Amino acid sequence: MDILNYQKDFIDYLESKKWVREPKNLYQPIDYIIKLGGKRMRPILTLMASDIFSDDYSKAMPAALAIEVFHNFTLIHDDIMDDAPLRRGKETVHEKWDINTGILSGDAMLILAYQYFENYEPKVFQKLAQLFSKTALEVCDGQQLDVDFETRKDVTIDEYINMIRLKTSVLVAAALKMGAIVAKTSDENANLIYDFGLNLGLAFQLQDDYLDTFGNPETFGKQVGGDIIENKKTFLYIKALEVANKDDKEKLQFFYNQKLEDNSVKVSEVTRIFELNDIPLLIKEQIKIYTEKAFDTLSTMNLSKENKAGLKNFGLWLMNRSV
Amino acid sequence: MDILNYQKDFIDYLESKKWVREPKNLYQPIDYIIKLGGKRMRPILTLMASDIFSDDYSKAMPAALAIEVFHNFTLIHDDIMDDAPLRRGKETVHEKWDINTGILSGDAMLILAYQYFENYEPKVFQKLAQLFSKTALEVCDGQQLDVDFETRKDVTIDEYINMIRLKTSVLVAAALKMGAIVAKTSDENANLIYDFGLNLGLAFQLQDDYLDTFGNPETFGKQVGGDIIENKKTFLYIKALEVANKDDKEKLQFFYNQKLEDNSVKVSEVTRIFELNDIPLLIKEQIKIYTEKAFDTLSTMNLSKENKAGLKNFGLWLMNRSV
Repeated sequence: MDILNYQKDFIDYLESKKWVREPKNLYQPIDYIIKLGGKRMRPILTLMASDIFSDDYSKAMPAALAIEVFHNFTLIHDDIMDDAPLRRGKETVHEKWDINTGILSGDAMLILAYQYFENYEPKVFQKLAQLFSKTALEVCDGQQLDVDFETRKDVTIDEYINMIRLKTSVLVAAALKMGAIVAKTSDENANLIYDFGLNLGLAFQLQDDYLDTFGNPETFGKQVGGDIIENKKTFLYIKALEVANKDDKEKLQFFYNQKLEDNSVKVSEVTRIFELNDIPLLIKEQIKIYTEKAFDTLSTMNLSKENKAGLKNFGLWLMNRSV
Repeated sequence: MDILNYQKDFIDYLESKKWVREPKNLYQPIDYIIKLGGKRMRPILTLMASDIFSDDYSKAMPAALAIEVFHNFTLIHDDIMDDAPLRRGKETVHEKWDINTGILSGDAMLILAYQYFENYEPKVFQKLAQLFSKTALEVCDGQQLDVDFETRKDVTIDEYINMIRLKTSVLVAAALKMGAIVAKTSDENANLIYDFGLNLGLAFQLQDDYLDTFGNPETFGKQVGGDIIENKKTFLYIKALEVANKDDKEKLQFFYNQKLEDNSVKVSEVTRIFELNDIPLLIKEQIKIYTEKAFDTLSTMNLSKENKAGLKNFGLWLMNRSV
């Protein structure tokens, strides 16, 4: 069980496919976003779960591809909604082409994702498609909640956790469960690995919130302070509003009403308020709680020590990314 | 076999469903577009095919719903792409809400459509989902070709027919075939009724082109001359360019380069050029050819006289709409 092996195999599989067909204007943007790169974390999870529960993880390739194509579909449509110019340092699809192209190529990708399940026999097909539909709809729900939160001033931590669960964690969990389904392991194992993924996904997203403000600019990959600049109500902000005194609370709300040209003062001031209120500590506690929940689920699973260690190592690899 | 019965049953089924759930901002637009009305032609086809090949067409309701929800998803996304303010005389979703809402609610509808197939056992589920994915992707291909044609000056009749086949006819054909699949008739019957629908769909779309210019303004439902005003390269325009003399051709191209405030002269002039070049006659010939192809397919099917007559009547009902 070697993460880099899964990654290499998946990328080879991805590149062996011919993405561009007629009409070219529909499929070239798909080829472009698919080949923009990324860690391929979700398909790796599918292959890993399949490897744990069977002796041939190559059978899980189409399911892994479905997950990756779906994930990239959400990136295209989300980037339109966020009016984002860049994705992985390159132009977003709607910037390189136009919004209409982004909408239609995205739609086609969602359908393509379902088609990859046709590689499986009817019973496995139905299980995969059913889990996929449930998950995809949850991701839409999560995206909608994220949009709704932008204009709300009373979002609670529980609501926030629910939003990131839907928007990000369920896909991580489903990626693992799909590997388990393809491997035809027990429903119990499939559900447990889903729970493992769900909690790990929550930990991962909270860590993303943390790193966005407190990460090392040289290794984080995105602009540190980006969430603050965008007035994104992440865990850090919502928690700070919850625990800070009236003065800090008002300062935070003041800064989060600004759209500025030069953000250096805003970022440093907001960061300082977070620090003064122990928010980094509080979020680290939460990350630890979800990571441990994930690892606790692992310990109850009917798996070899080696496989448990492998999954745990993956979790640690994921969580110990560039801080 | 009574079309109005299928229609009533389907509308009852549609209205018995609770469309709005949390997050409301995602599902209210879905409720809105679904309840905007329309003839419900596609789900009627699913119920009709199921009635012909089995003794309980109510089993086909979820498949009929999938087709209708998919169709309405394409309307939302197409209306964004066309920047259309009105749909069935009411505000389009992106007008009533915004473009982002239209994108995301549309995405959710595409997923919901797949979920309705979960009402069927694995083998039927796979057949339905497979046909659905193929069809949905063809509809995207057709939409892309339609967009591509806007900026091309050399579109041929064959290319145009291929575009409307993908954009409209395959969904009519698939609606019928899904009814056949749910009824568990032979693959041969399912494929023949698909062919029937494909040709009927082509005839229907060509008739739409005809009526858009030559229909009775009091009964057509849309603005007569709308395609001319929008410079839409329909069968009428492409055929006219093919058969007209240099002078008429140049006039047509001149008018199709204009975006005007007052379109009365443009519409009447272009209509006159179409008439002078016998385009109404030529398109009616084509409509007749596709309608007869559809009816020829019927005659080869292993069906009772009554059912054949029923399908033919449906075709006639569809084609004899408000001229």
